Amino acid sequence: MFESAEVGNTLDKKVYARRLEQARVSLLQAQAALAGTRFRLMILVGGVEGGGKTELARHFLDWLDPRGLQVEAYGDPSSEEDERPEYWRYWRTLPASGRGSILVGSWYTRPIVSRVFKRIGEGDFDRALDRANDFEAMLVREDTVLVKLWLHLSKKEQKARFRELEKDPDTAWRVTKEDWKYSAKYDRFVKVCAAALAKTGTAAAPWTVIEATDRRWRNATAAETVLAAMQDAVARSKKAVPPNAPDRPKAPKVSVLTRLDLSKTLGDAAHDEKLLKQQARVAWLTRRLRKEGRSLICAFEGVDAAGKGGSIRRLLSAIDARSARVTAVAAPTDEERARPYLWRFWRHLPRLGHVEIYDRTWYGRVLVERVEGFCAAVDWKRAYREICAFEEEMTESGIVVCKFWLQISPEEQLRRFKSRTQTPFKQYKITPEDWRNRAKWDAYQAAAVEMIERTGTPYAPWTLVEAEDKRWARVKVLKTVADRLEDELG
Amino acid sequence: MFESAEVGNTLDKKVYARRLEQARVSLLQAQAALAGTRFRLMILVGGVEGGGKTELARHFLDWLDPRGLQVEAYGDPSSEEDERPEYWRYWRTLPASGRGSILVGSWYTRPIVSRVFKRIGEGDFDRALDRANDFEAMLVREDTVLVKLWLHLSKKEQKARFRELEKDPDTAWRVTKEDWKYSAKYDRFVKVCAAALAKTGTAAAPWTVIEATDRRWRNATAAETVLAAMQDAVARSKKAVPPNAPDRPKAPKVSVLTRLDLSKTLGDAAHDEKLLKQQARVAWLTRRLRKEGRSLICAFEGVDAAGKGGSIRRLLSAIDARSARVTAVAAPTDEERARPYLWRFWRHLPRLGHVEIYDRTWYGRVLVERVEGFCAAVDWKRAYREICAFEEEMTESGIVVCKFWLQISPEEQLRRFKSRTQTPFKQYKITPEDWRNRAKWDAYQAAAVEMIERTGTPYAPWTLVEAEDKRWARVKVLKTVADRLEDELG
Repeated sequence: MFESAEVGNTLDKKVYARRLEQARVSLLQAQAALAGTRFRLMILVGGVEGGGKTELARHFLDWLDPRGLQVEAYGDPSSEEDERPEYWRYWRTLPASGRGSILVGSWYTRPIVSRVFKRIGEGDFDRALDRANDFEAMLVREDTVLVKLWLHLSKKEQKARFRELEKDPDTAWRVTKEDWKYSAKYDRFVKVCAAALAKTGTAAAPWTVIEATDRRWRNATAAETVLAAMQDAVARSKKAVPPNAPDRPKAPKVSVLTRLDLSKTLGDAAHDEKLLKQQARVAWLTRRLRKEGRSLICAFEGVDAAGKGGSIRRLLSAIDARSARVTAVAAPTDEERARPYLWRFWRHLPRLGHVEIYDRTWYGRVLVERVEGFCAAVDWKRAYREICAFEEEMTESGIVVCKFWLQISPEEQLRRFKSRTQTPFKQYKITPEDWRNRAKWDAYQAAAVEMIERTGTPYAPWTLVEAEDKRWARVKVLKTVADRLEDELG
Repeated sequence: MFESAEVGNTLDKKVYARRLEQARVSLLQAQAALAGTRFRLMILVGGVEGGGKTELARHFLDWLDPRGLQVEAYGDPSSEEDERPEYWRYWRTLPASGRGSILVGSWYTRPIVSRVFKRIGEGDFDRALDRANDFEAMLVREDTVLVKLWLHLSKKEQKARFRELEKDPDTAWRVTKEDWKYSAKYDRFVKVCAAALAKTGTAAAPWTVIEATDRRWRNATAAETVLAAMQDAVARSKKAVPPNAPDRPKAPKVSVLTRLDLSKTLGDAAHDEKLLKQQARVAWLTRRLRKEGRSLICAFEGVDAAGKGGSIRRLLSAIDARSARVTAVAAPTDEERARPYLWRFWRHLPRLGHVEIYDRTWYGRVLVERVEGFCAAVDWKRAYREICAFEEEMTESGIVVCKFWLQISPEEQLRRFKSRTQTPFKQYKITPEDWRNRAKWDAYQAAAVEMIERTGTPYAPWTLVEAEDKRWARVKVLKTVADRLEDELG
């Protein structure tokens, strides 16, 4: 993996000056061109200690317009980061379209260091790298120019570099005890890194290993690598994107949705009694959830007018108002549109002890966006896997995930639409779009069936709710939440 | 202050049911109407323990559409909050236009509790309340429907309420040791609160004190108070807003800007030597800054083409790339537009140990927005005071604030404009707007003079930089930063 980075590449001063001058003008031009596109630039700088990661980052701030570029150094996580899944800190710092970031340290740091010091085994190491691959594949597919640079030094060179830094009082502070500690493990470190690079050097996000002994060689190679990637993106941005086509799948005659027994009902008295009982359980269990530093996400999807709002209201009123929040998924803001589609859900992940209720969710990608053609077919097709990974990350960090699909019959939907139209203060709830979607009932049902099939996981199962009778539905939602919490909290 | 809240107000069940039913329909309608306007709703619920603040918040989640409303409970600050000025947590949770929040706990909590337990004196208490008043005045002026409710219980009632809660195993957990501790201090607590309410019951943001003994009375009064405020805002939102007028002040013949000696220059050799020396100082001092957990903000304003970018570059290259960030102030995003104008600067405040460099700043309000009429005269006129308060909050939290005004002559500006037009890869730097602004040279200078006059404070002084010679300017900027840091770090 690193053989070609120990061959003694150097660049003489004159050649360096000329090559860098050319590259700098082109870099600025490419950055300006990219600023107007959907692409973001992410330069990930990894490598052995002493290779000059931070120094290189500073050069990039100098070569490019620093107002469009941000250096992200991931030190110890803050308490807010600690309370969320590991990747939250990477999601929250994703640059908007047209902008860029230089990552000094990244999602590779923890797995590599943990593996070097044998705090994790081969399996967990591979798993962490798989996650990195998935994340990067998503980034690239979502218009990210991801340049992964690896700065390599031979064992001898690393020691020489540390000594050189230590000699000068102005730079001595840069060499820490940690550095020498890592250096003592050089061979093992390089072995682990080689395995990591082999596993994550994908076609979409390859590594560029750079011999970092000679600073001029390092700088010129890094600058030219980034430039080529940016120019490639600028060229791609000029190609017309084919228009998305709506996808109108046919619903299977028999499915998990047709199999639901929509005749289930509850009488008023039974409903009131059961609802109160379940609300008390939820109240008690969410209090325990808070004490134990876990959190809860309830995701609501369903047929239009199936009663999501009413169920959410009943659920909400059982939870301490200070720790619950409802997020209604509407049109994304421009800051959200400028980032990968899951970004707006990542940003709302609850703190420990908190409950986040989503009225419509990230599943919009494989429902409305699929059926209406709001995104490309390749994009909603990859979403199933991405969403499962998202929910897996949530659960691993201690979040309990409950997902509900509320189902009613088309006849009941029509009754409810009509009733809404006739009740003055409910009219705002019904729009021409609701009627249009109703006309595509079958396609939406088919998309829902596929979604349930492909994203129902042990860690984040779907609960299908017979919602023809609102009272039945509300009690079932509350009971499911209580049962899940009881299960999770033991 | 609380006399009228101990008179025994109650509401019988029937009257309550009728009044609440009416209020709820109207509340939903008002919320829907408000959703389409520039107004945001903020319900601040304060009061004695046991008065039912959280309970009332939950009722509001039930009465209003919870998807447009968020409960904010401010517990112990997170590490990220701890690293910023006290009000950062209130700024970061400001709802967007059209949305609402219910605040259980607020900027009143800390001053009141501190004063009750005599951790602060009368002076600091008043100072904290002044800050609250300023903040609220700003909120109201920036289209916030701010409803401040105070739930009052008599001493006897409070004890009775605690005992009642303690009797029921389902609610006993709600009464904490803290509560009894506060209760023992009831008289002092009420005295401090009365003083706080007297001082912060402003015309723009009055308090509504509610007798909270009878829950029905409390609920109905709270609901109707909020409703009236919302309806008032809806009515106001329908009134046409008079168009803003540009303001083109005349520059004084002699001013701090005309007095600058623009003939100051530095030779190449002197520049290189001095720049290196100052960069070394800044490098050393920002490292100390990081160690001591302070942070630094450098704000750059100046005539177009005065060389802000070049100075920022030289400054940036002296600082560890991992802890520095440049924010270029461009057009606000839609999330920013939906909040008070200082919000987008608050959100970028640096963590401890970090350096934030602003290329153009919050001063746009009293420069371009004033001169071009992008905001109303009343709005830029109040901005001087608001900006001073903002910078005072920064410095109090340990941020060192350096502000630079870069000045060149109109002749030099013309030369630079022309040179930019002629250099292919600098052309993007010059726009028709630059030429238009140049035609208003005098008005911009006048606005700058007034700005420097009114916002030059001991804690955040302006440094006027003679920038006719770029080399001189860069060295002066670096030296100023180094001197300030030396001064602040001792």
